[in-house]
Amino acid sequence: MKFDNNIPYKIYLTENEMPKSWYNVRADMKTKPAPLLNPATGKPCTFEDLQPVFCDELVRQELNNDDREIPIPQEIRDFYKMYRPSPLVRAYCLEEKLGTPAKIYYKFEGNNTSGSHKLNSAIAQAYYAKMQGLKGVTTETGAGQWGTALSMACSYFGLDCKVFMVKCSYEQKPFRREVMRTYGAAVTPSPSETTNVGRAILKEHPGTSGSLGCAISEAVEEAVSHPGYRYVLGSVLNQVLLHQSVIGLETKAALDKYGITPDIIIGCAGGGSNLGGLISPFMGEKLRGEKNYQIIAVEPASCPSLTRGVFAYDFCDTGHVCPLAKMYTLGSDFIPSPNHAGGLRYHGMSAILSELYDEGLMEARSVEQTKVFEAAEEFARVEGILPAPESSHAIRAAIDEALKCKETGEKKTIVFGLTGTGYFDMVAYQKFHDGEMSDYVPTDAELQESFKKLPKIAGQK
Amino acid sequence: MKFDNNIPYKIYLTENEMPKSWYNVRADMKTKPAPLLNPATGKPCTFEDLQPVFCDELVRQELNNDDREIPIPQEIRDFYKMYRPSPLVRAYCLEEKLGTPAKIYYKFEGNNTSGSHKLNSAIAQAYYAKMQGLKGVTTETGAGQWGTALSMACSYFGLDCKVFMVKCSYEQKPFRREVMRTYGAAVTPSPSETTNVGRAILKEHPGTSGSLGCAISEAVEEAVSHPGYRYVLGSVLNQVLLHQSVIGLETKAALDKYGITPDIIIGCAGGGSNLGGLISPFMGEKLRGEKNYQIIAVEPASCPSLTRGVFAYDFCDTGHVCPLAKMYTLGSDFIPSPNHAGGLRYHGMSAILSELYDEGLMEARSVEQTKVFEAAEEFARVEGILPAPESSHAIRAAIDEALKCKETGEKKTIVFGLTGTGYFDMVAYQKFHDGEMSDYVPTDAELQESFKKLPKIAGQK
Repeated sequence: MKFDNNIPYKIYLTENEMPKSWYNVRADMKTKPAPLLNPATGKPCTFEDLQPVFCDELVRQELNNDDREIPIPQEIRDFYKMYRPSPLVRAYCLEEKLGTPAKIYYKFEGNNTSGSHKLNSAIAQAYYAKMQGLKGVTTETGAGQWGTALSMACSYFGLDCKVFMVKCSYEQKPFRREVMRTYGAAVTPSPSETTNVGRAILKEHPGTSGSLGCAISEAVEEAVSHPGYRYVLGSVLNQVLLHQSVIGLETKAALDKYGITPDIIIGCAGGGSNLGGLISPFMGEKLRGEKNYQIIAVEPASCPSLTRGVFAYDFCDTGHVCPLAKMYTLGSDFIPSPNHAGGLRYHGMSAILSELYDEGLMEARSVEQTKVFEAAEEFARVEGILPAPESSHAIRAAIDEALKCKETGEKKTIVFGLTGTGYFDMVAYQKFHDGEMSDYVPTDAELQESFKKLPKIAGQK
Repeated sequence: MKFDNNIPYKIYLTENEMPKSWYNVRADMKTKPAPLLNPATGKPCTFEDLQPVFCDELVRQELNNDDREIPIPQEIRDFYKMYRPSPLVRAYCLEEKLGTPAKIYYKFEGNNTSGSHKLNSAIAQAYYAKMQGLKGVTTETGAGQWGTALSMACSYFGLDCKVFMVKCSYEQKPFRREVMRTYGAAVTPSPSETTNVGRAILKEHPGTSGSLGCAISEAVEEAVSHPGYRYVLGSVLNQVLLHQSVIGLETKAALDKYGITPDIIIGCAGGGSNLGGLISPFMGEKLRGEKNYQIIAVEPASCPSLTRGVFAYDFCDTGHVCPLAKMYTLGSDFIPSPNHAGGLRYHGMSAILSELYDEGLMEARSVEQTKVFEAAEEFARVEGILPAPESSHAIRAAIDEALKCKETGEKKTIVFGLTGTGYFDMVAYQKFHDGEMSDYVPTDAELQESFKKLPKIAGQK
């Protein structure tokens, strides 16, 4: 293998080089992302509308379209040191395997117990809850990555953490549940008898195995009905993309340190937290007209919100208890076919990314599941890291771009986000090995049917 | 939290500071570890005795008691860069939680897909197999850590990898099996119909769920009966401790870089590969009379080879196909009670460590399982990392030593080895959470019974 001796195989920033502020890309957007709407009034959500549900400071961050830099509190920076800076790795072995003239780098966010980038926002949200003097927070989790990250953050600050875990995952995927318990979280299978909405659902559908929409509804009810508790969410929201900008800031600092300018930046996209965080500072340069980059969002063909969705106001949750957001959406009732990238099975997309995509500032493409796992395995065998199914969407696109370079001879520099590890996703790998993986893609008719159920609000057909 | 701003929270060596040679502690031992004996002749194993089973260069390393430094081939150093240098972390949060004046550091070996330090030797063994022009290697695995590490290494060098996995683990712990398959290994549940010894065992015990001893026997048969294959082992052997010295060398370099001198060095001990690797360079200073350190091996109370075993020649495997080693042993037929630290359930101990312990150059203590998991959970909640059950034995002892300092006011510097993560051990954590964990310790009578079956060889009662 031919290493470039001037550039480390893994670029680690020093702890002193870690970002001291998050970067708020909204400050550089000419057209701001559309505001959240209060479903009761149809008007933009105010601080007062959101305050009963979210921590005060997080509401401020959610609504802040103006401040470009938001200082990262010292306590959060201290916690970041426990698993950050994360390495920017030159994929020498993958390049050699592909025989490409392209240079490939990946920012690896999986070296922490939550196994993903989710911890970057979890610790921030827990911190602001603690500073507000709250007792604890509630949330929902599907496969458990976000719940794990939040449990770790709450354990660190001594906050109560109540996680509603979709019942089928609670029963079929007990490992992440036990990780959460290790960090002291109370994990309740959803639907449960502990909330009104849970009891109502159980009465109507006895024996149901639950859904993320139902778990969100229970978590929100649990928060608003207990003094000293707030609800927290791990993706989609502006505040989450803000916290995740630490990924992009570190990536940019590492590249700048060695004089590397990427041509293409690639990230997987579900709710948008990882992609939004990774691209933020690069997009800022693009918005300010300083640089140009090709930016690619990669989503599952089974849940193609950017590539086949519509840009419209929609509910953020299937339970319709949350505000409306203007975003690329497949409709809040859309149920994607089974896909093992649980973190990408969301019907919508961050309002920030939706606006940027609509303006043509980034591209999107969708990839089929089997192709994703082929890329995952190829990557694992040469680079060592066993990637999460979500992250592997970005790997697929990076490999495809590198192979294009092999054809054209172009020496492009590709950077992609490797959001996490797949240690808790081995059932998916097993199905791949055994040839039992589905590549179902929704038909146009199915999507049109789903679009019909979009909420009727002013200015939207 | 009060950080010392002169010392990073995590000390990462640069890639240029990584060791270029392994350190062979045997070179500094006045009394060398006793040689392996050929069970057929009762005489010390020669190169020719071992050559049919192990790769040539590895046999040379096994028998080399003289060379202090053995260069690490460039290809292995390149691979090490994929997950090394590993961080030496100052446990500020744990210190604060304990309220101890002690300073605690841990060397974390879990940031790779195998989840442990095993990869350090796996890549070396695969490399020498490749250099010898072999087609592949065979091995056994219990819970799957070693098998995973070896699959990764073989995948990197394009070698065949045949893993015999104890059948009950193969069926009950499918996740590591799938990790191995992802890296292209052929994983066979043992006992199997593919070997003579497997068929014989199945005939005698239909429906048996297998044992490590049986899996070793199958792996050895598979290797010696196929041209171009050799057998490899992940612990106990001198060669393995040599490769694992990279842990201690990096630890020492990181400490030296910041002028830190440890008082106490702690590691968990099963076969001895991690402990031997961690302490090697420090033990070297001690053997040469340059420095003095308190060195502590920590083993499970359920499998107390150092603390309650005898120092005698014994079989390395329950199947009695391997050479005899002089070591602290509980007897090769000893079956420890259920313990979730699968990597520490070995009846014997590395010949090197056994000799050092016998000379009083290191201490040993045993800890009970529930106490180990209490330490694991306490550590996880403040330090973030979810530790493997094996590693948590060292955490237990480190916490105990730090609490002693709290009583005495001594400001000792404690370094311990955190060998890996517990992501694939959540069933153990679940039993701990549910209060279903056994703390059974063997009785003296049980041990005496086991000692009676030690092989009768010259000079041994």
